[in-house]
Amino acid sequence: MHKPLLAITLGDPAGIGPEVVAGLWPDRRLHELCRPLAIGHPAILRRAVELWQTRARVAEIDSPEQARPTVDTIPCLAVGGPETLEIPPATVDARAGQAAYEALVLAAKLALAGRIDGLVTAPLNKAALWAAGHHYPGHTELLAELCGVRDFAMMLYLPPDAALAAAAGLGVVHVTLHMALREALAAISTPAVVAKIRLADQIMRTLKGTQPSIGVAAVNPHAGECGLFGDEEARIIEPAVTEARAAGINVVGPLPADTLMVRAAAGDFDAVVAMYHDQGHIALKLLGMHRAVNVTLGLPIVRTSVAHGTAFDLAWQKKANTSSMLEAVRVAAQLGSTGK
Amino acid sequence: MHKPLLAITLGDPAGIGPEVVAGLWPDRRLHELCRPLAIGHPAILRRAVELWQTRARVAEIDSPEQARPTVDTIPCLAVGGPETLEIPPATVDARAGQAAYEALVLAAKLALAGRIDGLVTAPLNKAALWAAGHHYPGHTELLAELCGVRDFAMMLYLPPDAALAAAAGLGVVHVTLHMALREALAAISTPAVVAKIRLADQIMRTLKGTQPSIGVAAVNPHAGECGLFGDEEARIIEPAVTEARAAGINVVGPLPADTLMVRAAAGDFDAVVAMYHDQGHIALKLLGMHRAVNVTLGLPIVRTSVAHGTAFDLAWQKKANTSSMLEAVRVAAQLGSTGK
Repeated sequence: MHKPLLAITLGDPAGIGPEVVAGLWPDRRLHELCRPLAIGHPAILRRAVELWQTRARVAEIDSPEQARPTVDTIPCLAVGGPETLEIPPATVDARAGQAAYEALVLAAKLALAGRIDGLVTAPLNKAALWAAGHHYPGHTELLAELCGVRDFAMMLYLPPDAALAAAAGLGVVHVTLHMALREALAAISTPAVVAKIRLADQIMRTLKGTQPSIGVAAVNPHAGECGLFGDEEARIIEPAVTEARAAGINVVGPLPADTLMVRAAAGDFDAVVAMYHDQGHIALKLLGMHRAVNVTLGLPIVRTSVAHGTAFDLAWQKKANTSSMLEAVRVAAQLGSTGK
Repeated sequence: MHKPLLAITLGDPAGIGPEVVAGLWPDRRLHELCRPLAIGHPAILRRAVELWQTRARVAEIDSPEQARPTVDTIPCLAVGGPETLEIPPATVDARAGQAAYEALVLAAKLALAGRIDGLVTAPLNKAALWAAGHHYPGHTELLAELCGVRDFAMMLYLPPDAALAAAAGLGVVHVTLHMALREALAAISTPAVVAKIRLADQIMRTLKGTQPSIGVAAVNPHAGECGLFGDEEARIIEPAVTEARAAGINVVGPLPADTLMVRAAAGDFDAVVAMYHDQGHIALKLLGMHRAVNVTLGLPIVRTSVAHGTAFDLAWQKKANTSSMLEAVRVAAQLGSTGK
């Protein structure tokens, strides 16, 4: 079988991204899943290799077609100028935001051109991204703009695991994401909920191979307790679920978010549609913080990411956990080889 | 040691309350923890005993002082008229709401008069409560009014357990509770957050025996990402944490809710102060749905409750899980005997 060619960005050089990439590289599972290449400043990557004291050699390449990855060789497409090397660890720095931005843009362009099968991103720091003049709430929104799509979503995904009842893993697709909760409430609309239900159905159909079961979360406690605690359920979410069911999707809701998450963990659903960031993230991180993967839905390219942030409190201390990156690669490889 | 005398209300007769009480009664652990008595309609309780086919006899009593509970004898203070017996199972019925209301009022009065050491409540149905003309969001708010207190809170509590890192269990105290999320955002204020931090500190000090560690959740994703996603953190929550720290409380925050809950599960905190219902409930129910206990803080009396609802989908089918009720009794007994 053709192994997918995946680009892994280093993310913010001040965070744990470079050492996560360097730390994972010697793992044979990475190379069984895909042909990986790195995108970032080669000297930053070499620093991370030295930190772990692995044998890997960073080999600069000019095009993805030149990548010949092995456990001992990290092909690296260079981005960023010499100023990248002056970035101090674990700090918000505009130069670090710029470096993360450039790596992401190059990866997205290569994927859009069909020259790589997908991209896997290490974390960026949003304050650094903004300091560099790129005013995006995060990776997801930036990629959506680069790809020119409007219907997109961030899915937090737990791959299949002995501890998880659902055979194809559990995905949580967010209707709103990186905005104040107050603004999120205003942004929840029937068309938005329908769009996210469709995206959840599509991705889990690909990952499961059969029709998935989807549960939609309410926004108010007790799903509004029959209208006593808010009307978004009756006014916005129920019509969306009705519309999606009419389109043949196996979906129920709105359900109280606290018990919905327990049912999802028990295997009742393959995916949950959450109304706001923390509703989905609290549940998935508790169920498997280090295994969770971030998947961007609705793009014409495959993109996954670690679910953690830059972790400045741990960065460049050789403490970074590489589990989430391995899982992110696994999911990207699966999606990249099914031609999604 | 003096075993506390605890009243257990039957809750809504159409829900799982009566069978949870009848189902738990033969469990010797219940009687090792306390001297229990039931409050509700004796004939409803007899129906529940028949459902389980236990040997227990329901013995009507006129005052709590007459209670002589054993595994085979359920002392019961009668409330509710004959109309209670006509309530169909698993439906919203004003008569059921009235029955639950009367049992709760009697239990609260007995506790306020010092004639019982605490009360443990089975679930009521809020729509039934409202249909009976009692317009309270739930047990908690009704009890606060009966007791004449303004600074109160609902804590969802997971008692100590091998699966939980915190030695004294994990409590989640809610700043807002039974209201639309939109209204909850408007109700979060610095004094309210300070009051809940104080209540969390007091209860966990009692349950732990030493000074507890408290984490306060942010309201916006990523704790507002330095102001990019909302300003409640800087404007409302940070000043509350500063004030509480100045008062000698071991508290930090606001922290992003998703990682805060993971840290709390790992033992970093004894209690979390959550800003709204689902923020706390999603986490605690995932960590231990059937073991979670609801504790009302700030009352002059001891009151705990099961953390589940009336579960009309399971009611009167002999499927009810009694674990949460046993844990609720355990916590009430602990608080009732420390003279909280």
